Amino acid sequence: MKRIFTPMLTALLLATAPMAANAAEEKVVYHVNDSANARVAMNNVNNHLNAAPDAKIVVVTHGKGIDFLLNDAKDDKGEFAPVVAGLKGKGVDFRVCNNTLKARKLDASAVVPEATIVPSGVAEIGRLQAQEGYVYLKP
Amino acid sequence: MKRIFTPMLTALLLATAPMAANAAEEKVVYHVNDSANARVAMNNVNNHLNAAPDAKIVVVTHGKGIDFLLNDAKDDKGEFAPVVAGLKGKGVDFRVCNNTLKARKLDASAVVPEATIVPSGVAEIGRLQAQEGYVYLKP
Amino acid sequence: MKRIFTPMLTALLLATAPMAANAAEEKVVYHVNDSANARVAMNNVNNHLNAAPDAKIVVVTHGKGIDFLLNDAKDDKGEFAPVVAGLKGKGVDFRVCNNTLKARKLDASAVVPEATIVPSGVAEIGRLQAQEGYVYLKP
Repeated sequence: MKRIFTPMLTALLLATAPMAANAAEEKVVYHVNDSANARVAMNNVNNHLNAAPDAKIVVVTHGKGIDFLLNDAKDDKGEFAPVVAGLKGKGVDFRVCNNTLKARKLDASAVVPEATIVPSGVAEIGRLQAQEGYVYLKP
Repeated sequence: MKRIFTPMLTALLLATAPMAANAAEEKVVYHVNDSANARVAMNNVNNHLNAAPDAKIVVVTHGKGIDFLLNDAKDDKGEFAPVVAGLKGKGVDFRVCNNTLKARKLDASAVVPEATIVPSGVAEIGRLQAQEGYVYLKP
Repeated sequence: MKRIFTPMLTALLLATAPMAANAAEEKVVYHVNDSANARVAMNNVNNHLNAAPDAKIVVVTHGKGIDFLLNDAKDDKGEFAPVVAGLKGKGVDFRVCNNTLKARKLDASAVVPEATIVPSGVAEIGRLQAQEGYVYLKP
């Protein structure tokens, strides 16, 4: 009897496994559409990782949120480059909206090398949640 | 043997089917509680649909977020009516919080015909996520 | 035949039961990182519960969002204590970020007794969504 049902049971276990994995793993998309709070957002991400070191964090930016990921970006606390590089080194991904780049007539070379460019920031935020099991947080 | 287990297997497949469907489909609730960024939010929705044409988007408004869905609403870029009608034509739903209407002593007739009225905007946002598999995005 | 498969079927039903429960129950994390809109946020929570009395709501605060949960907090509409106590009485949980307390050199005793302290506000928001099935709403 056992042998007969093994394939079916295996198929069922395989079918339910991804859900169990999603429940255990923590993946978070940080939505940044205003660089005025980028410094605070980066502190949030850093604190998040200190409390949950295994969390996978992706920062998706569009609109005014891309500014801190442009070359030589700074605010009154200093340059963003070392903060971004430091978080990248901890596994954080940074993504920049290409619709925003086009609307602002910016070339891809204007973006820091730590970030990647995605066709649409908002669609990326939807996709990460709907297709890849990310949860959402807006700093 | 096959015939005996078909009902059980069918039942299991039916039980897991809705989850698979949810994983493949993208449904997004846009939360707007401030019409000061309604123009940007509508651009976001439009860009989202350009990048993900099959996404189902519902814009839920409450508080100051309902203003761009009132008759004759406009900002410095012009009237909102054509933008709302255009997105409605692409399948976007617009919902307005009745608690807000009551608090501001507005009649349902003050709301543009493209939008529907829901008892509570925030409860609608919770319901869409918890009961209907929507993901969240706040412009 | 029936008897033989009962344990396997039971195991499968148990495995799928939590998902069904999550789908039916509504749990919402309210994210507050600015007490300037705390009054509106509390109105939102109240309206949410009026429309969905069985919803479990947790308000997670960090940064400037913790201020309305400090002793004697008030705004131009009055003290926050009675509002917080009233919502607590309806089952709402309030959580305050310890990273924020440390950064602002505040002792735990500065926080109202209705709130509990969590190591990191943002990590708590991620955890509630990823591990406990909460959906997200930012007032």
